[in-house]
Amino acid sequence: MTAAYAVTSPGAPIELIEVADVPLGPLGVDVRVTHCGVCHTDIGMIDNEFGISRYPVVAGHEAVGVVERLGSAVPPDQLAVGQRVGVGATAGACFACEWCLSGRHHLCPAKDDVVFRGDRGAFASHVRATDWRYAHPIPPGMSSEHAGPLLCAGATVFTAIHQHEVRPTDHVAVVGLGGLGHVAVQFLAKWGCHVTAITSSADKAADARRFGAHHVIIAGPQGEGLAEAATSFDFMLSTVSANLPWDSYLATLRPQGKLCMLGVPSHRVSLSPLSLLPGERTIVGGVTGGPSITRMMLEFASRHGIQPEVELFAVSDIEAALNRTRTGQARYRVVLDYLT
Amino acid sequence: MTAAYAVTSPGAPIELIEVADVPLGPLGVDVRVTHCGVCHTDIGMIDNEFGISRYPVVAGHEAVGVVERLGSAVPPDQLAVGQRVGVGATAGACFACEWCLSGRHHLCPAKDDVVFRGDRGAFASHVRATDWRYAHPIPPGMSSEHAGPLLCAGATVFTAIHQHEVRPTDHVAVVGLGGLGHVAVQFLAKWGCHVTAITSSADKAADARRFGAHHVIIAGPQGEGLAEAATSFDFMLSTVSANLPWDSYLATLRPQGKLCMLGVPSHRVSLSPLSLLPGERTIVGGVTGGPSITRMMLEFASRHGIQPEVELFAVSDIEAALNRTRTGQARYRVVLDYLT
Repeated sequence: MTAAYAVTSPGAPIELIEVADVPLGPLGVDVRVTHCGVCHTDIGMIDNEFGISRYPVVAGHEAVGVVERLGSAVPPDQLAVGQRVGVGATAGACFACEWCLSGRHHLCPAKDDVVFRGDRGAFASHVRATDWRYAHPIPPGMSSEHAGPLLCAGATVFTAIHQHEVRPTDHVAVVGLGGLGHVAVQFLAKWGCHVTAITSSADKAADARRFGAHHVIIAGPQGEGLAEAATSFDFMLSTVSANLPWDSYLATLRPQGKLCMLGVPSHRVSLSPLSLLPGERTIVGGVTGGPSITRMMLEFASRHGIQPEVELFAVSDIEAALNRTRTGQARYRVVLDYLT
Repeated sequence: MTAAYAVTSPGAPIELIEVADVPLGPLGVDVRVTHCGVCHTDIGMIDNEFGISRYPVVAGHEAVGVVERLGSAVPPDQLAVGQRVGVGATAGACFACEWCLSGRHHLCPAKDDVVFRGDRGAFASHVRATDWRYAHPIPPGMSSEHAGPLLCAGATVFTAIHQHEVRPTDHVAVVGLGGLGHVAVQFLAKWGCHVTAITSSADKAADARRFGAHHVIIAGPQGEGLAEAATSFDFMLSTVSANLPWDSYLATLRPQGKLCMLGVPSHRVSLSPLSLLPGERTIVGGVTGGPSITRMMLEFASRHGIQPEVELFAVSDIEAALNRTRTGQARYRVVLDYLT
């Protein structure tokens, strides 16, 4: 049986429940969780913010732990019981559709999305990778509490940087200095870029510089503060769920500049066609990439010493941990520790 | 002196006026106009639709004619008096800024934009390329009346196709079957793509197929008719100025699909973030490319026999010609003939 931290209805307190085991498939891997990051999407699912939650909800999709059981068809030279691995927002894909076969497993319609699994998230004693290729070995020397948030927050920002072919010569901006933003600044600084952090919190400026930002802009809700950066950036990552004044942000892009939206605003996006046309500017949506890019991200983070700044909570204190993220107080990622 | 077809105030009739000559720069080329296409942007400038017109307005930016005079520094092995050339929406650039030096002359802040020149457009006896590299030799065998519309409508759609690396294996859609759309369908069909034309005019379906479309969708103002094409297209060119239900159009894109907006809607663009994010979809603005791509486009059109379908009007009948475009009746591009 798996012991899981569940919410049985919106607003209910966390309860420890037993989740019945499902037979392990031949390609699957069961992982005993030791650490798990808390992402805003977990809060969204727990609180039914997206209107799609089925209760009980067991959230958690930034897990690190130890392989406890391997399916019969997992190649023995790939994973071993006792090995340390991570399981992020996705735990399997079909490896047969056109998307998987072209290296774009994250677009597989049949992918096993941990976030939307219902009661099979990683706020639990165990989490399952339905396919072993989604149980990612953690590089030696990378601590488990730091590896956790890299598996979703890290992979999401890294996918955008890699996929949109950001170049070290680029001037880039990161909007929002939260769980995603604070690792995005680190990745882009190590990527060789000139990095500007854009935040609404003046008290985060010093941290942004510590993470590697060369410049910080404190922006107001109507885009106050952005005028100084007009026509500055080749690439911009928006990691916030705020409803930004999009035209003001697009005006900070250079011609052919690209705004990649990773956070999901609650409102519709409204923009002037002239924000896009004369400068051939782009808005594109981004999501967490597949296993190949996740492993590349872990290697890059390990090589450059990139690590999320975490606040560790004993898993028994999960209610307080969730509230910390829910209220936006985390500096910069809450991680649950199952070992204390 | 240049004799020009001018409008002296919004809504005034066309008048033939004399425009004083300006000295020809060392790199310039004066062209005696024989044909000129009528683009919607010309109507917009004549009618002050964009609120930026300075009167008198002499519009026209799809000109073909004969070189009459060359600046002292034009290389003699490049252009000759009497040679047939085209001058499109841009007539010069600085050839020195970062955009020009990186082959992106169309983003040069100092480019000489014919559309916004005031009284120096090509609805006139002469039009000037301020730089000879913007006087494009017309391929032998391509008639002047067909070459005219290629210089703006053709170059605009071709730039988008080329720049966004559309592949012959792609399934693509062209929204709108007007001056731009009807050549976009031709270019994409010859590019090897599967082409769907999306139009609100059922009476254009047969023409769309004649231009090379494999499929035609008659779409209503709320996106009626688009459901059959859900998740179909790798690339979509929007050539219309209508205010489309953008979410419905984005829903026809495959994951990682791209909508390139060439027409300028009068209203703000409103869309759900979920139209972009889960499928990593893109919206990007497009404009007419620089001299290199214009020449590539002319070569491609010539090789494949791509030609706009034109309605020829004697230039003396310019008022009727403009009205034909103004009221959206042109099938599919009005061209003024200065020789009859």
